[in-house]
Amino acid sequence: MPVPHPSPISGASFSAAELSEDGDAAILLDQRRLPEEEPYVRLLDARAVAVAITDMVVRGAPAIGVAAAYGMAVEAHVHRNDDEGAFLAAMREAGAIMAAARPTAVNLAWAVGEMLADLGAISARPKAERAATLAERARAIHRADVAACRAMGARGAAHIPDGATVLTHCNAGALATGGYGTALGVIRAAKEAGKRIRVLADETRPYLQGARLTCWELSRDGIDVELITDGMPGHFFARGAIDVVVVGADRIAKNGDVANKIGTYGVACLARLHDRPFLVAAPSSTLDPACPNGAAIHIEERASDEVVRIFGRSIAPANVRARHPGFDVTPARLVTRLVTERGDVPGERASELMA
Amino acid sequence: MPVPHPSPISGASFSAAELSEDGDAAILLDQRRLPEEEPYVRLLDARAVAVAITDMVVRGAPAIGVAAAYGMAVEAHVHRNDDEGAFLAAMREAGAIMAAARPTAVNLAWAVGEMLADLGAISARPKAERAATLAERARAIHRADVAACRAMGARGAAHIPDGATVLTHCNAGALATGGYGTALGVIRAAKEAGKRIRVLADETRPYLQGARLTCWELSRDGIDVELITDGMPGHFFARGAIDVVVVGADRIAKNGDVANKIGTYGVACLARLHDRPFLVAAPSSTLDPACPNGAAIHIEERASDEVVRIFGRSIAPANVRARHPGFDVTPARLVTRLVTERGDVPGERASELMA
Repeated sequence: MPVPHPSPISGASFSAAELSEDGDAAILLDQRRLPEEEPYVRLLDARAVAVAITDMVVRGAPAIGVAAAYGMAVEAHVHRNDDEGAFLAAMREAGAIMAAARPTAVNLAWAVGEMLADLGAISARPKAERAATLAERARAIHRADVAACRAMGARGAAHIPDGATVLTHCNAGALATGGYGTALGVIRAAKEAGKRIRVLADETRPYLQGARLTCWELSRDGIDVELITDGMPGHFFARGAIDVVVVGADRIAKNGDVANKIGTYGVACLARLHDRPFLVAAPSSTLDPACPNGAAIHIEERASDEVVRIFGRSIAPANVRARHPGFDVTPARLVTRLVTERGDVPGERASELMA
Repeated sequence: MPVPHPSPISGASFSAAELSEDGDAAILLDQRRLPEEEPYVRLLDARAVAVAITDMVVRGAPAIGVAAAYGMAVEAHVHRNDDEGAFLAAMREAGAIMAAARPTAVNLAWAVGEMLADLGAISARPKAERAATLAERARAIHRADVAACRAMGARGAAHIPDGATVLTHCNAGALATGGYGTALGVIRAAKEAGKRIRVLADETRPYLQGARLTCWELSRDGIDVELITDGMPGHFFARGAIDVVVVGADRIAKNGDVANKIGTYGVACLARLHDRPFLVAAPSSTLDPACPNGAAIHIEERASDEVVRIFGRSIAPANVRARHPGFDVTPARLVTRLVTERGDVPGERASELMA
């Protein structure tokens, strides 16, 4: 049953993931149907949330973490009248299912771990308290994510001049987080600081997250945004029509190399060639001090059909395959500023944020 | 009535434009329906060919020129029994309609002019000869285009190493010419010279000519081709997976600056940054000595909807507009080699080809 649901935590008029007031339902915005529709789904146990994560109803590592936390809270509600042992067993089983929903998203495993911490002690509490405790814990994860986005937004906004046209790639926005966004959080914070900002959004093939999600959420918030194809940034850089680039990140190595959505590296090259700042905004949970550099980051090669088929139709002959690296690596030297909630430094000094 | 029709002039198993043996029909491959279908349409007068050119049944400046010539030849067949005065008037009227079909395509006006040269003398000939003379003239235009493509192919192939992976953008192929192609002619010639060649084809949003047309014609000819999105070249350059780039051109200024399909400039920047040759292949009719440099080339801004709508569905919210420059300009200094049928030089020495 789709229900519209503004976010009491981020304050936005839409939200990737929420918990119902009673704690009986995780409410997810089905992002696969944006921008044509804005349908919210109410999910009533952890398994349903895990399936939604697998099926990309919600995407973006921080948003997946929040959704998983809410899924665990809802599971506690389902088992609210169980005995201690049954409650403990049900929550452990739900945690295992949830953590496997998308094994590569770091925040997912982290959020499930947070929800299961001290599970024995929680299970032993009065039945009336258990679900409420876990609901509050999930909401705290959500609040912390929004706070991190706002903190990095404020830091990043200092690097966005008044009157700037900002290029972004993919969707590192409210839809990818608990709300507010990472790269788009920087843009929102610049706007809130009174700066006049225009955005150019790369459509970001093959999934078109820039067109479908970034354009949707920025226009929804009254931020001036225009769509361009992934082949157009060079043209607009050459004409002096882009002042600064800001993108998110999926993983940041110890040396500051940044893995992000395919196409990011090409934009970083063009920014450098045209002498424009290239900012990366990401929560510190994206920093991976165990990964020495970009060469150590495995770039997943995804299915050809995700490129070849659009809206169910093929854009290429049946015997031609597409290459589909899902991510690329931008070397630290091309990152003018790496912005986290803890601090911001030039890309080559990323390790200072990993103390 | 769709009819398959191999090309007696280019020798290919498909052709953008042909004249029927009897000279009574222009036969065009409806490229809008590639790669899902390969339908040929038979058009029985100049007006029908003009409509097909306007509607993009055929595209690519050289192919448009050949189609227009055949449309004029078919018109002569329609009026084969007219008196001298009526024949002259009908051909002049058809020429005016044809030339207006797509005013920006230089080759279109040129081909119509060629077909109408000495029209008075032709009209005065015996009725039995007039249409045959114009049919032969149109076929000569077609043959000359194929010969130019083959000549530039042979020149360009000298710059393609054995075993190379070649990146191309848009479709500068047999489908855009009388056959064989400009950029893809270079690739075909390298293959015919016994070199092992692999091609990466940018899909080339918004029209997807790379996916729909380049992948189709190369795979049809047994050339190893893989599709990538317009955001992927940087990733493959960084991995050393691209050895050389070859593209076509829409207009080349006196100083060697090259206007070509949007996205070309970004690829040229990446080629330079990764120290790989960037080749431009174009017939000498593309050289424009009257245009001093790229800044003097007007870049047409096309409709937002051509970006926003794919297969009839919107990829962005209704209130968001897309920018849509149809072309970009690559400065001569980024063009390693400019290849024409007359000769090939570094981009900055383009004027040597304009003597």
